[in-house]
Formats: sequence, structure tokens, C-alpha cells
Amino acid sequence: MSDVRIGIDDLPVRDELRGKSPYGAPQLDVPVRLNTNENPYPLPEPLVERIAERVREAARGLNRYPDRDAVELRTELARYLTRTTGHELSLAHVWAANGSNEVIQQLLQTFGGPGRTAIGFEPSYSMHGLIARGTGTAWISGPRHDDFTVDVEAATKAIAAHQPDVVFITTPNNPTGNAVPAETVLALYEVAQAAKPSIVVVDEAYVEFSHGDSLLPLIEGRPNLVISRTMSKAFGAAGLRLGYLAAHPAVVDAVQLVRLPYHLSAVTQATALAALEHTDTLLKYVDQLKAERDRLVTELRALGYEVTDSDANFVQFGRFADAHEVWTRILDRGVLVRDNGVPGWLRVTAGTPDENDAFLDAVRELKKERHA
Amino acid sequence: MSDVRIGIDDLPVRDELRGKSPYGAPQLDVPVRLNTNENPYPLPEPLVERIAERVREAARGLNRYPDRDAVELRTELARYLTRTTGHELSLAHVWAANGSNEVIQQLLQTFGGPGRTAIGFEPSYSMHGLIARGTGTAWISGPRHDDFTVDVEAATKAIAAHQPDVVFITTPNNPTGNAVPAETVLALYEVAQAAKPSIVVVDEAYVEFSHGDSLLPLIEGRPNLVISRTMSKAFGAAGLRLGYLAAHPAVVDAVQLVRLPYHLSAVTQATALAALEHTDTLLKYVDQLKAERDRLVTELRALGYEVTDSDANFVQFGRFADAHEVWTRILDRGVLVRDNGVPGWLRVTAGTPDENDAFLDAVRELKKERHA
Repeated sequence: MSDVRIGIDDLPVRDELRGKSPYGAPQLDVPVRLNTNENPYPLPEPLVERIAERVREAARGLNRYPDRDAVELRTELARYLTRTTGHELSLAHVWAANGSNEVIQQLLQTFGGPGRTAIGFEPSYSMHGLIARGTGTAWISGPRHDDFTVDVEAATKAIAAHQPDVVFITTPNNPTGNAVPAETVLALYEVAQAAKPSIVVVDEAYVEFSHGDSLLPLIEGRPNLVISRTMSKAFGAAGLRLGYLAAHPAVVDAVQLVRLPYHLSAVTQATALAALEHTDTLLKYVDQLKAERDRLVTELRALGYEVTDSDANFVQFGRFADAHEVWTRILDRGVLVRDNGVPGWLRVTAGTPDENDAFLDAVRELKKERHA
Repeated sequence: MSDVRIGIDDLPVRDELRGKSPYGAPQLDVPVRLNTNENPYPLPEPLVERIAERVREAARGLNRYPDRDAVELRTELARYLTRTTGHELSLAHVWAANGSNEVIQQLLQTFGGPGRTAIGFEPSYSMHGLIARGTGTAWISGPRHDDFTVDVEAATKAIAAHQPDVVFITTPNNPTGNAVPAETVLALYEVAQAAKPSIVVVDEAYVEFSHGDSLLPLIEGRPNLVISRTMSKAFGAAGLRLGYLAAHPAVVDAVQLVRLPYHLSAVTQATALAALEHTDTLLKYVDQLKAERDRLVTELRALGYEVTDSDANFVQFGRFADAHEVWTRILDRGVLVRDNGVPGWLRVTAGTPDENDAFLDAVRELKKERHA
């Protein structure tokens, strides 16, 4: 019907979008999917029932707009953060959106944007740079050490030189897995306030899997420090798309200047509230995944692989002369891991014990072939 | 705990956000709420049950990311559009997001943005201009006639003079209620292609309530024409936040370059699919609302008010020396209508027959007082 010969480049799209492809991991139909850092445990059936119950209730008022300020949800998120970090927070400190991607987009629309600059220390979560560009914010790729820890001296210099408006620090870092020490975050926060005030976003998407503590208490007395979180990983709810932030109430007020009104649907709010009722059960899965993550690190090292220390629900391993070729050979054995484009390295998500066994068998065979 | 003396303006927010307030109608607790063009009819109970059922199913896989491309949902939306417009569409012509606001944001990120310009003919849906500014797109407020129809000659001149990259045409228009004739849209589309190709977005959020037909068939052979739709109004699902567009498949490909990955949650997709199963029932409510809307127009005119012709589920009436004062006096009688800032006019949403009676009683009393 339509003229299929017309493509994207025949439309008046922005110049910087020409020739680009949409972001996203390949969604392949493979027995063992350990590529997107999903939680392998389905929600327990009582929680599934509770979600159906709360959504049924929400559906009865679905003809009305949702609570624009998501008051009940933000109150419960604040309660969860208070309980798990020991730092007392309220509704006023918390904001929620459709996935941490939307949280980050709102932060960049508020504090970045045209004529402004953001920096991240790469390799890191690539959406930071992509969303920066999507909001017209210039993106600076900051440095890391070869072992993927943040190079504080070089990072300090980069911040002092570029004076970015927004600084991203991902801890535990994705895709490498290592956590950033509090003193590093504090040092970068200080330098980011030196020439002019800048917003520092600490992306803690994976913090529940960490050996250490959340850096959330650092927001006290630091109004330009923002902690970003998600229910996708620890709460086993990647399908829910619920990200949130904790910060000084002024930050929460500020992002409301750019949020689309009624951005968070009534069914999303109801589902997230149901999941928060089951926090204890879900955090038990987190404990299991931490043990499995530690097992992956140990076994991969025993096999002779290099492994980056991990505080996340995934493990970066290498090194390979041709990481993509190894990715393909693991896939041939029915296991999908992630090639993030970090030269020499691959990333595997901690799955169920069986899934991890399947992965370890696959890489064990690889080793054998190489030595044959 | 936090220093509450710190406010938005103490943070490094973008200059253009300083002193601004978040968009949104007052959410007041009033017996009769006719202010946000919501559908007054709650979803029928069998649909509520079907939503609970589909969300329960989706919740069982909630630990996984949702279908990033929302294939089933887009297929069903295409089927709905084909059925109701007679114009055959498929998945490839349809894109969906969290409310038509997000659809518009994605269109502006793709075709507008820094260094680019968008135009709308005001008064119209104020989010077009707000989202334009939020995406760094310069906004031009185009003209209308005094009777709120689009002034084709002036609009043509404005497009020729400013050469905007994106043109918004809202039909039926919000907040005025009148529809824009196909020939006007075609004339503006032609002039918007003359100097250079521009995207023309026809916002049909209220089209199901129209006396006339959707302009959707006009996308045939016009790859730069986009029809924007929502499930908030005709489907009685403002709480769901499901907006969508229909256009040439190249447009659908293009917005995927800027959409946040996995932007549409699994519960949103499941709920929307359930609602689409009940289209026939929901469209019967639309017929009732159209009759009530026509009654409001007739009765308001009989009372001596000026009323703009309405093809939407709301009615603009006036004229008042001080519209805000009238708004307050109607509110005193327990009925919340909308003061959109159109000098001399107010907007009332068509509610249930009882709600509309309450509104008509209120304005009738007002008339009496004036004549007393």
C-alpha cells in the first residue's frame, strides 16, 4: 500500500540521526538468555495474584487520569530506601518514571540540554551518552583505568577542564561490574562544584547486588547529588519499567518542570506498589543471585579467565583476541551473553544455578577446544 | 533533615526553566469534575476482569524486559484503525508510547530539536508548545480566526515565512472543540512541503467523538503526514497512558531512533490489549457522550451563551468579561470546569447525563443572578 521504497533518510529527520540504528540488545530465542541482566526468577505466585488484584482495582478508575504525582508510590519507595539504607527519606526526596532511562532523560532535560555538557566514565551504561545526545546535551567520554576502576586523577582533570553540567557515575558499573568507592564519588562531587555547581548522578541500578552499601546517605547536605535506582533488577521487574531517584527535594521539584504530565500510568503505579509489598521475598532472590554471581567469578577465574570484580548481577570476563567470535561460539551452545563492544571482554548475567551451569559448561568446552 | 531553604533556583537548572511551574490542571476534590476531558464512564466490569487476567499473565514474565517493539499491541491498534477508518493499515504503520505526549515528544526529538522549529495554531493543545520547548525546538504560535477556525491564508503565510520543521494541526481542536476540514490540512501539508519537506502532525486525540471522519486515509502517498491518537478518551483509559501514531512505515522506523528502549511496560501493553478486545462496548459509550455533547451545545446556546461548534467530548462556551471569575462561581456550585486561559471562554467536558445536568443547573443559576 505505502511506498516501501521510502526510508528514514527520505524523511526530514535530524542530521545526527541519519544512518543510526535503534539501541537494543538482540532479542534472540535461545534456551539460556544471560545477556540483559534480567533477574532469572519469575515473581512468586502470591505477588502475581496481588498485582492482578491491585491492577483490577486501578482499572475500575482507569477512565480518570492517574495520580500525576504518584504520591503513594513515592512514599513506599522512600520507605524501602529508608529501610535498606538506614537513611531517612520521605516522598519529597523521591521521584519515579518509566524506567531509569526516563529518570535520566528528565534529569538531562532539567540540568543538561542544548548548550550544556554531560560526562561519563566509559565503558559504562551506554544509555547515559545516548540519552544525553537525545536531549541535545553534548557528551564527553571520560577515562577509566585499564582495570575499569575510575581513574580519579584523570576524571578530576576532565571535570575541571570541561566543566560539565552533569556528571554520571555508575556504581556498580555496567558493563564491567565493579563498584565505585564513596571517596571517589565524593572527590568527583567536590571538583564538579568547584568552578560552578554541577549535578552528579550516581546510577545505582545494581546496588542491591553489591557487597558494600548504597551511597544514598551522601545526598545529605549535597543538593546536587542524585541517586538513580530501578525496580528492573533487584525487584525482578524489568517488564514493569519503573525507575526512580532519591535526592534533595529541590531536585524532585525541578524534574517536575520537564516531566510529561501523567507520565506514570495507574497500572504501573499499582503494579509497583504490589511489588513493594513483597520486598522481603524479592530480596531473598537477590541473596541467591549474589551467591551465584560470586560462584561465576570464582569458577571463571579457576578456568583461567580474567574476571573484573563484580558487585552487580553480572560478570565481565575475558580477555579474548576476538570477543565477538567467542560470543558466537557460546551462542552456538545455546547460551546468549552480551558483547558490549568492550574490546576483549564479554558480560554474562547471573542466572539460575542451572543456567549458570549451562554457561560454565559452554566456556569450559571452549577452553578445552583451545587447548586441544 | 534536608535543608528545605534550598529551592529549584538554587540548583543548576536550565535558564528557561527558572520561575516556571509544572504543567497540569488543578486536581480538586469536587463532586462533578468536568475539567480534563476524561471519559466519565468507568470501564465495564467484564473488561476490568479481562485486564486483571491479562496483567496476571504478563506479571508471570515481569522479570523479563517487555516486547521492545510492542508487536501484538501495534498489530491490534492497526486493526482498530483499519476497521474504524476503512483505510488498511498494518503493524508497520503504527507506533505506540506512554500517552500521546510521549508520541509527540518522540516526533519532536526525531524531526524537531535544537536549531529546528515547530508551529501550532493557537489556542490549541498547549502541550505541543511545551514539549517543543522541552526538546529544544523553537515554538511558533500560529494564528486562528476569531471563531477559532484555522485561518488558512494566515497559516499558509506563517508556514511559508518561518519554514517550520514540524507543523501541528489538532482536529478536533482542544480546547475549542471544532474540527479542521480535510482541505485545510491538505493545503497546509502542501505549503509545508514547498520550500523543504516538513512533518505535519494531525493530532486526532478526540476524533472518535467527531461528526465527521478521521483524516487518517490522507497518510496514503504523504510520508510526512502523521496522525496522532490516544486511548485516553474514546477508550475511557486516561489512566493507562497509551498514545499511538499512524503514518508511513518510514516514520515508525525513524521514531525508533529516539525512543527509550523498552519504553512501554508489559503491564501497559497487556492492559491496552484487553481494552482493544472490548472496542465495541467502549464505542457505545462514545455514542452516548456525543449525544450528551450535542445536548450541552444546544442547552448552552438556549441559555444565551456563545458556544463553539464541537466535534470533541467537550464544549467551549462564553463569552465572559472575566472567565476566571465565572470558573470560580461554577466551582462554588460543586462543578469543576476548565479555564484554559482563552480570554472570555471556558471549557466543559461532557460527563454523564447527571453530571451535565449539574453543570447546566449551575450555569442556569449564574444567568439568573446576572439578570436579577
